[in-house]
Amino acid sequence: MSNPEKVLQSAEAPLRDAYARAGVDIGAGNAAVQRYKAVTESWRHPDQLGAIGGFSGLFRLPGDGDRALVGSADGVGTKILLASESHRYDTVGADLVNHCVNDILVVNATPLFFLDYLAVGKLDPDVAGEIVGGVQRACRAHNCALLGGETAEMPGLYQPGHFDLAGTIIGIVDTAAVPDPTSVEPGDAIVGLPSIGLHTNGYSLARTLIPQSEWNDPFPAAGAGKTYLDALLASHPSYLEAVRAIQKVARVKTMAHITGGGLLENVPRTLPEKCKAIFEAARWTVPPIFEELVRRGDLQHDESHRTFNMGVGYTLVVPLADAQAAVDAWPEAAIVGWIEDRLPGEPAVVVHPRRA
Amino acid sequence: MSNPEKVLQSAEAPLRDAYARAGVDIGAGNAAVQRYKAVTESWRHPDQLGAIGGFSGLFRLPGDGDRALVGSADGVGTKILLASESHRYDTVGADLVNHCVNDILVVNATPLFFLDYLAVGKLDPDVAGEIVGGVQRACRAHNCALLGGETAEMPGLYQPGHFDLAGTIIGIVDTAAVPDPTSVEPGDAIVGLPSIGLHTNGYSLARTLIPQSEWNDPFPAAGAGKTYLDALLASHPSYLEAVRAIQKVARVKTMAHITGGGLLENVPRTLPEKCKAIFEAARWTVPPIFEELVRRGDLQHDESHRTFNMGVGYTLVVPLADAQAAVDAWPEAAIVGWIEDRLPGEPAVVVHPRRA
Repeated sequence: MSNPEKVLQSAEAPLRDAYARAGVDIGAGNAAVQRYKAVTESWRHPDQLGAIGGFSGLFRLPGDGDRALVGSADGVGTKILLASESHRYDTVGADLVNHCVNDILVVNATPLFFLDYLAVGKLDPDVAGEIVGGVQRACRAHNCALLGGETAEMPGLYQPGHFDLAGTIIGIVDTAAVPDPTSVEPGDAIVGLPSIGLHTNGYSLARTLIPQSEWNDPFPAAGAGKTYLDALLASHPSYLEAVRAIQKVARVKTMAHITGGGLLENVPRTLPEKCKAIFEAARWTVPPIFEELVRRGDLQHDESHRTFNMGVGYTLVVPLADAQAAVDAWPEAAIVGWIEDRLPGEPAVVVHPRRA
Repeated sequence: MSNPEKVLQSAEAPLRDAYARAGVDIGAGNAAVQRYKAVTESWRHPDQLGAIGGFSGLFRLPGDGDRALVGSADGVGTKILLASESHRYDTVGADLVNHCVNDILVVNATPLFFLDYLAVGKLDPDVAGEIVGGVQRACRAHNCALLGGETAEMPGLYQPGHFDLAGTIIGIVDTAAVPDPTSVEPGDAIVGLPSIGLHTNGYSLARTLIPQSEWNDPFPAAGAGKTYLDALLASHPSYLEAVRAIQKVARVKTMAHITGGGLLENVPRTLPEKCKAIFEAARWTVPPIFEELVRRGDLQHDESHRTFNMGVGYTLVVPLADAQAAVDAWPEAAIVGWIEDRLPGEPAVVVHPRRA
């Protein structure tokens, strides 16, 4: 399919320690993506339009040659296990909706409506109400209709206290306003928007490094009175408002939502072959939870930047001349890197570590 | 939300033996629906249109006041456990897509595109490829784009061989062509389209009545060489072609997709308060798998018709004058009942049993 599986986006990645340690098999992920390609290349609907980097799929708006509907499906990943095991149900809705909003934002789409899928082992109406309430609040914050949903009680598939939450967002975009990655040139600047933690990726590893027995321990690095759980459950933010503010003052050539695979795998999906992205880690703040995970897991530089967002949640490539205006337009935005020529054999993304 | 959870559609139903025996709590379902209503009634997007019976949600097509987008989310239910435990992965995609196609068909929508969500305990690329291949084939059969999807590997939430599959369909409809349930009158005929088995509902109960140890035993009632598993896994059919054929010759006033809750709970969702539906079970064939389940579970008449479709997969209400033309337009269609006045306190649906 046009959006072959964000968690599996890693066509060039070797089998990685970090994921393997957490029981997630990247090799199998790559193989599955190949299977999906074979399946979906056999037939394509004539109204499907080319997508960018697989964050979402585009479909011509019926009766309007100038606009397209944009769809994206996603889940919350194993962050859901932290929520269920700690009985915090009000934030996963925002995680899900905001993740989806950001995915379609990569092609510049504005949300129209959302549908959710909630699967539970044993239905607790209060819990289900809290979860769907969170979905609805996050939709409303984007003026996005919660158009429908399904709740399935499936004893035998889910353990009694467990649940899974997934959803699909539909947005709309002027096709002329879809960013064109081929316009990216060496010398362009990369503007980054900060992450507030893991968002919805890397939890299988995080759960092995910070065991449940420690979740309620104090983690003052994240703020006074905060626990590990607070830091781990911090909600995936929406970047819609920030991006719209920046677009008013800067020409945005391409964007990436930094999900599973981190900067190393998400940014290349939105760059032309001839370009590489250079990031300077000294230019942004790494949330303390990542430093803790890197320390506990003794994660190598590339390993951490392939598993976690490491502090950058969303990137925008702008002409150098627009870079200052862009960061002035949103207080938390920062210039985090730039674009260079990419020679054959070079990686598409390099993250220069901070000096010790 | 406008589509509050098909498996839980049972606002007036008492706690039922059949579901309770299977570990599915209808009381909790009703309570969850109430929570969702409280949540979603707090705010509605101005472009959301009224839906019929909660099978799907409608959203005004941007820039076109005469048409609406129609969305519906669904899963395959615990039929997924039969598929995973018997290693048959190629049919659940059709179950999912066809279920969704039928749900939006109730408001007369034609499919545009689909997005899937596949969650696994341990990713097997061959299995994932088979599952998504089945989704793609069923989409293609409806000229429906497979626009995207998500595959999530979630060790800890799903057991290694287990998976869940859900999806969202988006279709389109002329708002003037959305059926109007208030046009239904006493004396109208009900045309039924046959089911081929459980479709995607009632599997939690079916799995308790036909244990896994018997799945590969012969079940000749379903056909020469057939096993219980063959009968249980028979794919949920699409009714799109049949409905379109009937609509060419008959005025269709309202339709219902017979999913969880059976005739007793799905048909009332599409009728005006003043009408009840009378079904004559002698007028259709009950697939042998239902007779087997009723016998094994000693299920009472109402219990079976609330848990299973019992042989009718889809209903269309037409004026009596059009009924013969309707059944002539599709070989498998049959007149299965009629509409009568409903007095206060009367049930909305009555199924007259076949005489012994």
